[in-house]
Amino acid sequence: MQKFLRVDVRKQTVNYDPVPDEYKLLGGRGLTARILLDEVDARCSPLGENNKIIFAPGILGGTKAPCTGRLSVGAKSPLTQGVKESNAGGTAGHKIARLGIKAIIVEGKPSDDWFIVVVNKDGARLELANELVNLGNYELSEKLRERFGKKVSIISIGQAGEYCLPVAGVAVSDLEGKPNRYAGRGGMGAVMGAKHIKAIVLDDSGTEGVSYHDKDTFSDICKHIRKGLAENQITGNVFPQYGTSVNIQVVNALGAIPTKNFRYGSYEHAEMISGEKMHDVIMERGGEGKTTHPCMPGCPIMCSNIYPDEQGKTIVAPMEYETMAMFGSNLDIPSLDGIAHLNKLCNDYGIDTIEMGVTLGVAMDGGILAFGDVEKCKELITEISKGTLVGRLLGQGAEILAKVLGAERVPAFKGQGIPAYDPRALKGNIPLYATSPMGADHTCGNSLRVPDPLSPKGKVKASRKLQIGIANIDNLGLCMFAGLVVGGRPDWIKSLVESRYGIDVPDTFVEDIGKEVLTTELVFNERAGFTKDDNRVPEFLQKEPLPPHNTVCDISHEEIRQCLDFGTEL
Amino acid sequence: MQKFLRVDVRKQTVNYDPVPDEYKLLGGRGLTARILLDEVDARCSPLGENNKIIFAPGILGGTKAPCTGRLSVGAKSPLTQGVKESNAGGTAGHKIARLGIKAIIVEGKPSDDWFIVVVNKDGARLELANELVNLGNYELSEKLRERFGKKVSIISIGQAGEYCLPVAGVAVSDLEGKPNRYAGRGGMGAVMGAKHIKAIVLDDSGTEGVSYHDKDTFSDICKHIRKGLAENQITGNVFPQYGTSVNIQVVNALGAIPTKNFRYGSYEHAEMISGEKMHDVIMERGGEGKTTHPCMPGCPIMCSNIYPDEQGKTIVAPMEYETMAMFGSNLDIPSLDGIAHLNKLCNDYGIDTIEMGVTLGVAMDGGILAFGDVEKCKELITEISKGTLVGRLLGQGAEILAKVLGAERVPAFKGQGIPAYDPRALKGNIPLYATSPMGADHTCGNSLRVPDPLSPKGKVKASRKLQIGIANIDNLGLCMFAGLVVGGRPDWIKSLVESRYGIDVPDTFVEDIGKEVLTTELVFNERAGFTKDDNRVPEFLQKEPLPPHNTVCDISHEEIRQCLDFGTEL
Repeated sequence: MQKFLRVDVRKQTVNYDPVPDEYKLLGGRGLTARILLDEVDARCSPLGENNKIIFAPGILGGTKAPCTGRLSVGAKSPLTQGVKESNAGGTAGHKIARLGIKAIIVEGKPSDDWFIVVVNKDGARLELANELVNLGNYELSEKLRERFGKKVSIISIGQAGEYCLPVAGVAVSDLEGKPNRYAGRGGMGAVMGAKHIKAIVLDDSGTEGVSYHDKDTFSDICKHIRKGLAENQITGNVFPQYGTSVNIQVVNALGAIPTKNFRYGSYEHAEMISGEKMHDVIMERGGEGKTTHPCMPGCPIMCSNIYPDEQGKTIVAPMEYETMAMFGSNLDIPSLDGIAHLNKLCNDYGIDTIEMGVTLGVAMDGGILAFGDVEKCKELITEISKGTLVGRLLGQGAEILAKVLGAERVPAFKGQGIPAYDPRALKGNIPLYATSPMGADHTCGNSLRVPDPLSPKGKVKASRKLQIGIANIDNLGLCMFAGLVVGGRPDWIKSLVESRYGIDVPDTFVEDIGKEVLTTELVFNERAGFTKDDNRVPEFLQKEPLPPHNTVCDISHEEIRQCLDFGTEL
Repeated sequence: MQKFLRVDVRKQTVNYDPVPDEYKLLGGRGLTARILLDEVDARCSPLGENNKIIFAPGILGGTKAPCTGRLSVGAKSPLTQGVKESNAGGTAGHKIARLGIKAIIVEGKPSDDWFIVVVNKDGARLELANELVNLGNYELSEKLRERFGKKVSIISIGQAGEYCLPVAGVAVSDLEGKPNRYAGRGGMGAVMGAKHIKAIVLDDSGTEGVSYHDKDTFSDICKHIRKGLAENQITGNVFPQYGTSVNIQVVNALGAIPTKNFRYGSYEHAEMISGEKMHDVIMERGGEGKTTHPCMPGCPIMCSNIYPDEQGKTIVAPMEYETMAMFGSNLDIPSLDGIAHLNKLCNDYGIDTIEMGVTLGVAMDGGILAFGDVEKCKELITEISKGTLVGRLLGQGAEILAKVLGAERVPAFKGQGIPAYDPRALKGNIPLYATSPMGADHTCGNSLRVPDPLSPKGKVKASRKLQIGIANIDNLGLCMFAGLVVGGRPDWIKSLVESRYGIDVPDTFVEDIGKEVLTTELVFNERAGFTKDDNRVPEFLQKEPLPPHNTVCDISHEEIRQCLDFGTEL
């Protein structure tokens, strides 16, 4: 029987609660959204006592189905002031599920003390952890592993989370036990910090794991999935070699890679920060570095990597497309080593590299530092870890910094910085960024593979379909890259859910659940005060043509508004 | 015939336009609001090309009626994102009226160059003024007076305005030609800076001045007003001796003086920063210092002052209650000299002392500097003048800083910092701050003289009446202190308007025009996206009892909402 683990930081209690029946087929993003809607006043202050932070694996979490170990972290966002879910790979999602826990819900107003939550087969407890305050994720993780063993999984925040900064993400242990996987976006680390929870330590040893209603059928579908992933060009060939970093050259060729604070869509030094280049560097430098590497147990795609220095010593793991573009082309830093060092600082302090890259781009454009100045970037990121006034300002993200600098170009939707796909040259991402309840978020239905990216035609409809599809994937706890294969097989998904839970689900399950998740989020945002006006596209994206294609965001507000208005046929 | 002077900074042209008939009885705040509503897209970016900044004397501007020389400065506010009018004494209001100008309207998108506007009896022109950039108001004023003569009046901005910071005010020459009078609130200096206008130089020599339809009647009423002002206890006795600074002891005794970032309502060192103390210091130190001093031509109240150092040399003029409380009790700086030096820096850089005092209080509460640290305050204010990242952050005002620091206590309404009357102990100011289209603004209907300040009873009704009354006063261009006497005589006001303009106005003129002005402003704000929800009271004011009376803001949101809903009888 699955249960909720409720952590009340005011009472300093932990309790296991039964899961209401109607939550049965909700997991991951769908579950975090639903709990927020049912339990949290949408008007609350994101960093105040009335917000909650929820950690939930998907409904396939803990199973042996490939790539189903994503952990969703949800709360009202201090960055967007709306609903937020950010999910990460690593080992925590599976372990929570294997501990029989459907979600960990942290709530209440904290005392001055800091705590960690420790969960194992015997139960859960809060432990005083004031001595862990002000540690970066790397050192924190080492200390906790020394104490609780090498096999635990850790969910943690760095200094940025402690200071409750909206750029703060939540770190999750990878397969090597390092805090390298990130639920980066939307300031989930700040909400965790606002609850004075420095880490959650998960030990699933001695548990029985999840049960199956029909294990044979489940296993059978898993075989199909593995075969599908292996045969797919992206998940079976390109990603295993290069990971997401292959997108540098792809998106650069599309003219959609953010360059110098979104002033250009292609980067003259793209080759120097490309996935192909990184592949060569890793092969040459060796060390711990391998070209491919899984982020979750049992993942056959293995798109992760470990990036070494010239001596073969690990600088950071992994280097992902988003980070490479946002720190590389967007800040005009044509150096993988430079990017890796910034990435490492962000991981240690617990900072979302996307929001940081957008923010530093705004700072560069505003004359605070020069484009390409890696050393100054390091200094500024370090200010965040110290909680200085400058650090706290940068820690608010791109939109606030743009306001402070009086910048007319504000690269954000609903307060969240635009990720590494400029929508002026990838027009399916116009309705995505504008209407997603999450703000500018490429993980909610990226249109990278939608044909004819420069034409606005049909993109609103395409985005609706993609957003519904991803909402379902995020409810399953499935990796969105595996979703490239599995997403196209609603029959497989139906079978997996039925054989895991012993419940009949309709043939329309995938679409139903996707719409339900989105609707839940939209209702939360409406209660939080969002209106259709908040689906606006930043002015500069509508006016300023993006080289080399010199296109702008040219889908009308009226059309965009219909994207998630499911009553309207598209 | 009165006309508009339109300055188009894009075309670099100046033009005199006729004034539409329906604007005839609108002046000052009423006129700036109406022009904004009629000509400016309420959704525009306050610092963008579509905003306009309007300088307008009241409808009695330029006349010999006492205290009618106020200059209204209006624009969409970068601080509140809504309509804003801030008015100042000094000599500019009268001179604009005497030049036959009903309002100066600055519009358009600026070039990279900076300009001054020069207006005299022969016309107006733009002059290149790049060499004046980065000057503080004091040096700027000296240079312009050297060039254009000692008798000109100057409207100008300091460095804060150049950096387009929402704390930036607009300085206006006083009777000695010093830039000592301020339209401080709401970032009007930022909008002027966004238009690249460093100053407006007004020379009314050789003009005929304003005409009267019935000069004898007008003069007759003026005599009554002078007599009324002389006989009134405040305008005839207390203010001539102490000016507004007398309120330190008054508001301290009420328990409503902001102390240590609005944590207390009385200050243990109130006496050290009191008006009585200042009076003694000025008398003792002498120099240019006098105890009383008019801010506008022909003002019999003479509530201004000049504050000298120990050698009798002027530090700053004037020291007003708001500045003394916001820098004194709110920052725990029990030193008139300390306050005077901060005041001087703000005047020079063109910074609103109220918003700065609230902002520094938030910074102190957030641990950025210690309460009472004058030297660090000077440093931080100086950062603003340099446009550093820290300076630009502080230049956003209290609400943004509170957000950046993650402070739960946000002492602002509609983005504007609370002035020196804590509404928890002066409850008539709860509906005032909450519903005024200007945000937290004591000049829009301060309830200081409403009986029983600790009781919420009847305060919404009282505030409606006060807000209507002040809107009328601001339309006349009358000083609100003179309004204490004149406001109670609608018959005088009717006579003044009729004898000045030769138009019959109804007996209900005062109330009609007050409601019209407020309604115009409310419609603008509605178009700008404000809802009734924006009339909310900050949470900490509702929850945190204010010593010594330990009261909170306890008027319901429902009741507050009715304050300016003129369809509802109160």
